Amino acid sequence: MKVSPLAPGAFPNLPVIEGVTFAATAAGVKYADRDDVMLAVLAPGSSVAGVFTKSATRSANVLDCQAKLGAASDAGAAIIVNSGNSNAFTGKAGEGSVAAICDAVSATTGVPTEWVFTASTGVIGERLPHERITAKVAGLVAAQKSDALPAAAKAIMTTDTFAKGSTASVEVDGKTVKIAGIAKGSGMIAPDMATMLVYIFTDAKLDQPELQSLLSELCDKTFNCITVDSDTSTSDSLMLAATGASGADVSGSADFKNALHSVMLDLAHQVVRDGEGATKFVEVRVTSAKDNADAKTVALSIANSPLVKTAIAGEDPNWGRIVMAVGKSGAAADRDKLTIRFGDILVAEEGWVTESYTEEVGAAYMKDQNLKISVDLGLGSGTSTVWTCDLTHDYITINADYRS
Amino acid sequence: MKVSPLAPGAFPNLPVIEGVTFAATAAGVKYADRDDVMLAVLAPGSSVAGVFTKSATRSANVLDCQAKLGAASDAGAAIIVNSGNSNAFTGKAGEGSVAAICDAVSATTGVPTEWVFTASTGVIGERLPHERITAKVAGLVAAQKSDALPAAAKAIMTTDTFAKGSTASVEVDGKTVKIAGIAKGSGMIAPDMATMLVYIFTDAKLDQPELQSLLSELCDKTFNCITVDSDTSTSDSLMLAATGASGADVSGSADFKNALHSVMLDLAHQVVRDGEGATKFVEVRVTSAKDNADAKTVALSIANSPLVKTAIAGEDPNWGRIVMAVGKSGAAADRDKLTIRFGDILVAEEGWVTESYTEEVGAAYMKDQNLKISVDLGLGSGTSTVWTCDLTHDYITINADYRS
Repeated sequence: MKVSPLAPGAFPNLPVIEGVTFAATAAGVKYADRDDVMLAVLAPGSSVAGVFTKSATRSANVLDCQAKLGAASDAGAAIIVNSGNSNAFTGKAGEGSVAAICDAVSATTGVPTEWVFTASTGVIGERLPHERITAKVAGLVAAQKSDALPAAAKAIMTTDTFAKGSTASVEVDGKTVKIAGIAKGSGMIAPDMATMLVYIFTDAKLDQPELQSLLSELCDKTFNCITVDSDTSTSDSLMLAATGASGADVSGSADFKNALHSVMLDLAHQVVRDGEGATKFVEVRVTSAKDNADAKTVALSIANSPLVKTAIAGEDPNWGRIVMAVGKSGAAADRDKLTIRFGDILVAEEGWVTESYTEEVGAAYMKDQNLKISVDLGLGSGTSTVWTCDLTHDYITINADYRS
Repeated sequence: MKVSPLAPGAFPNLPVIEGVTFAATAAGVKYADRDDVMLAVLAPGSSVAGVFTKSATRSANVLDCQAKLGAASDAGAAIIVNSGNSNAFTGKAGEGSVAAICDAVSATTGVPTEWVFTASTGVIGERLPHERITAKVAGLVAAQKSDALPAAAKAIMTTDTFAKGSTASVEVDGKTVKIAGIAKGSGMIAPDMATMLVYIFTDAKLDQPELQSLLSELCDKTFNCITVDSDTSTSDSLMLAATGASGADVSGSADFKNALHSVMLDLAHQVVRDGEGATKFVEVRVTSAKDNADAKTVALSIANSPLVKTAIAGEDPNWGRIVMAVGKSGAAADRDKLTIRFGDILVAEEGWVTESYTEEVGAAYMKDQNLKISVDLGLGSGTSTVWTCDLTHDYITINADYRS
């Protein structure tokens, strides 16, 4: 698999986050000759927050994590993730697999099972051979290192073409707070359910309820605003763990919130940039909608339209399809108040193409790798920005026979 | 453009419908060397009903037709349709084009402008060169013939790979009633807005309100149950005209309703069979949903999922993606009550793959050209059936540069 043309130049230099250690290993769940399991162990006193898919057929792991998040613990926590098999739609056996993995991690680390979180990503509906994972737990615990987060980022990849990481640091009360996160995700990406798998760690100090509320709020502006193909994973999980090791209490800190936001947005953009078959990174900005909900409806209608996405793939400035996507969205719209822009180029306004606009100017713009489509509805003050990619032959190639 | 592998063997033998005549001609709206305008003229006393796209950016033609439908007329009616340009998002100029065409048809045929209906299909956002059409009206009127409906079917094609027609006849009160219809549509096909362009003619006698109510009811079971790509045209129009020439009053006739239903379903299926790039015709049947609305939500979630559609294109029996599509739909669902079948093959039940199911059996089934996916939700009595096609490389090829 060739690396996405939209990939960042290099994996970032992730700092050590005091209070958490990592290891990755090859358990042979499905893939040969590569790491496919990662384990993170958090020190006692850590807070853990999470946002998960709303799918009605979500995986046994997701159900287990959701049930555990409410509980409090000061005996530390652990997160274990495998790629190659999603353990979704595997009936009662799937629940047994989660329990077996949690028991093994708890027995080896001393973390209570109530604070062992799992995730599985890959094919749906095949039994998870969890014994291959439990056989590796002792080794994973023994191998724990504070600087092994990049290895963890690689272990959770499925159809991803590059590992995804992001980091930020911020001064709070004279202390340096660090944030480092990893993500995987490439297809089956749609908003309103977080995204595929994302794990973010910080040495900030914040109690669980505030950590959770911060994560949920920022998720709505980042992972809930990206879409690759409108399909929603049964395994989407976003977790944020705060070890408190920096000693900096970030409660109410706008600086910390901004830093966390930047890490989450960066990871969300990287997921889109690794969208299956993607050759274009597209920002869709909708303004002057009746309200924010309408703005997001229109933005997603554009971002998910196969006809808009194939036009972008073909570098065709087919703005008529944007009009179509606005029209079909169900949101309030008035032909004669619509304004459409490609980047800074005014394309259409007052119900028709602008006199100054030429096909040549539009076609030249569409050759860029990073595109911005703006739609002003001229009705109210609702705004929304979402990010997506184009729909190409490679998406079909990747998905027409993913399992073979 | 090669003909869709799913095309019917031959265009049907359409009967003459007394009370309506047709002609088609090459006006050079956009395409060279082919007919691109058709005109149907209905005798005085005819009833006309219509269902149109709900798009907020629908074309000037659609808005004009909707405004006219309410009016009564016994001075006959006319329907004029062009391909190559949709006259959508063309501002006030688009309204002027519609008026110019209606005036020309009215002046030549004597049909009042209030009963001249138009439709335009093709590229969005480019001025309709209506003078090319009005220049041909006199010739179209002079060339009217009762057996020219097949030529009309060809004139309204855009990316269609075959002309679409269907017919039925039924005895009512000892008289033979005939129905003949044509359709165009291939991409930008989604339900809840009729479909692309469909014109059905019958010599039955039925007043306009009952004709309209019958059309709307049957549209919900046919054109509103098909989807190619989830994108919705700005021009979708479905019209039904009854000349009454058979003398058979079909008011309340179940036989007539059944015959009309069969013509509409046949045309709807033909639109799916000509779905851009389609190689598989897929029926998605959902049963035991909480209610009918939930059933349709689940059926469309499956039928519109790019991951389900690409799996079908690859003949991959990837039933896990069906679980995903059920889960993301937002409808009530319970993993442990789900049953999935490919044709008669039981694939999954009680939350997991069935013991008797093997990948080989599923893979063999997926090689068929006509596929049936059944999902039983095990919750209530809601049912829905929708029809779709697969998502292939050819869809990308056709749409990545449609305008060039």
